[in-house]
Amino acid sequence: MKIAILGGTGSIGEGFALRWAEKHDISICSREVDRAVSAADEYTETLSNKGMVCCGITGCTNEVGIRDVDVVVLSVPYQGVISLLKNLRPCFKDQIVISLVVPMKKNTWFEYTPPKQGSAALEIRDVLPKGVKVVSAYHNVSAKKLANIELALDYDVVVCGDDESAKKTVVELTREIKNLRPLDGGGLASSYMIESLTPFLINLAIRNGLSDLGVKFI
Amino acid sequence: MKIAILGGTGSIGEGFALRWAEKHDISICSREVDRAVSAADEYTETLSNKGMVCCGITGCTNEVGIRDVDVVVLSVPYQGVISLLKNLRPCFKDQIVISLVVPMKKNTWFEYTPPKQGSAALEIRDVLPKGVKVVSAYHNVSAKKLANIELALDYDVVVCGDDESAKKTVVELTREIKNLRPLDGGGLASSYMIESLTPFLINLAIRNGLSDLGVKFI
Repeated sequence: MKIAILGGTGSIGEGFALRWAEKHDISICSREVDRAVSAADEYTETLSNKGMVCCGITGCTNEVGIRDVDVVVLSVPYQGVISLLKNLRPCFKDQIVISLVVPMKKNTWFEYTPPKQGSAALEIRDVLPKGVKVVSAYHNVSAKKLANIELALDYDVVVCGDDESAKKTVVELTREIKNLRPLDGGGLASSYMIESLTPFLINLAIRNGLSDLGVKFI
Repeated sequence: MKIAILGGTGSIGEGFALRWAEKHDISICSREVDRAVSAADEYTETLSNKGMVCCGITGCTNEVGIRDVDVVVLSVPYQGVISLLKNLRPCFKDQIVISLVVPMKKNTWFEYTPPKQGSAALEIRDVLPKGVKVVSAYHNVSAKKLANIELALDYDVVVCGDDESAKKTVVELTREIKNLRPLDGGGLASSYMIESLTPFLINLAIRNGLSDLGVKFI
């Protein structure tokens, strides 16, 4: 598959690129093409140094990267994501968009601040063309642990979406990451639950002297 | 300590009675004293058959059971809990009340339906005398697994409350149950997050063919 990662120069983007590059073509997308190319080269070198096979990681602008791909990973902050997607709307057609986006703010503690639609996932769906299939997942995977490709991630990933075929693709992509267990979280309207877990996990980590918390349902 | 369990004849009540009876005096409370006595006798026999020490498990009415105890465990359904507590208000003074209560309803799936206060824990605090210290915990512990006393529960228990000393007591009670890890979830106002996890976990279990799900933050 062809996978574009918006926000691909950040650590969560790095983790997905490194974990999926063995089987898929990866585009690292950024507003600044130089940063995207430099990150793509760096990830390629990381894999090469480890003697790992790589289908190809290329850096490009957002506009170039997301056209004609199967999957777009939205690993960008909530702030600015809607205006970014409105600008990129002509480049979207029928891709699967995986939203990792969590609307939250920090007062003393982190707080979930969903838009009026109920979740970032629903708001994102509303600004994209109807053919695009939005799936929400990976909100609670530690970027640091994901980027450490030797590490097996003993986490669960709850996947929400309204298009069963798109969800199945995300479930399969999840299974390709060692030890991640995909779980069906229901329709896209259920995304608020997994989005709201993120500030909860961050607060829990801070309060209890833990870090990079993920979640496992047992 | 003296611990009263409201709803003590149900399976989650049974689990707490069996797990805590070695170190604490347990009152099994019910509207119907006969049911309470019969459950208390049954739990005592279970422990005796396993050769386990037991401080004493007694059955009694709600009114008798909750007076002069250190801790009251509220393991009753949300429906009816507020009127129950209003009736029992004269029996409360300065106990620690552990709320396991989750307001939820089932349409196609289970849905969290918090009261206007934001969570059952806050609503419960508002109907009890000011001296009572409400702590919320154990919403996501499987009743079935808790009642199986040989089983080590590899779960996390998030504890929320405004009184640090009361929270500490609940943290210590949690540590007495094998492998449960207590985590500080912040003030009582944060209870909505752990309450809302319950319908989410039930839906997740149904959708994925799992059962008795708990949660672990790793």
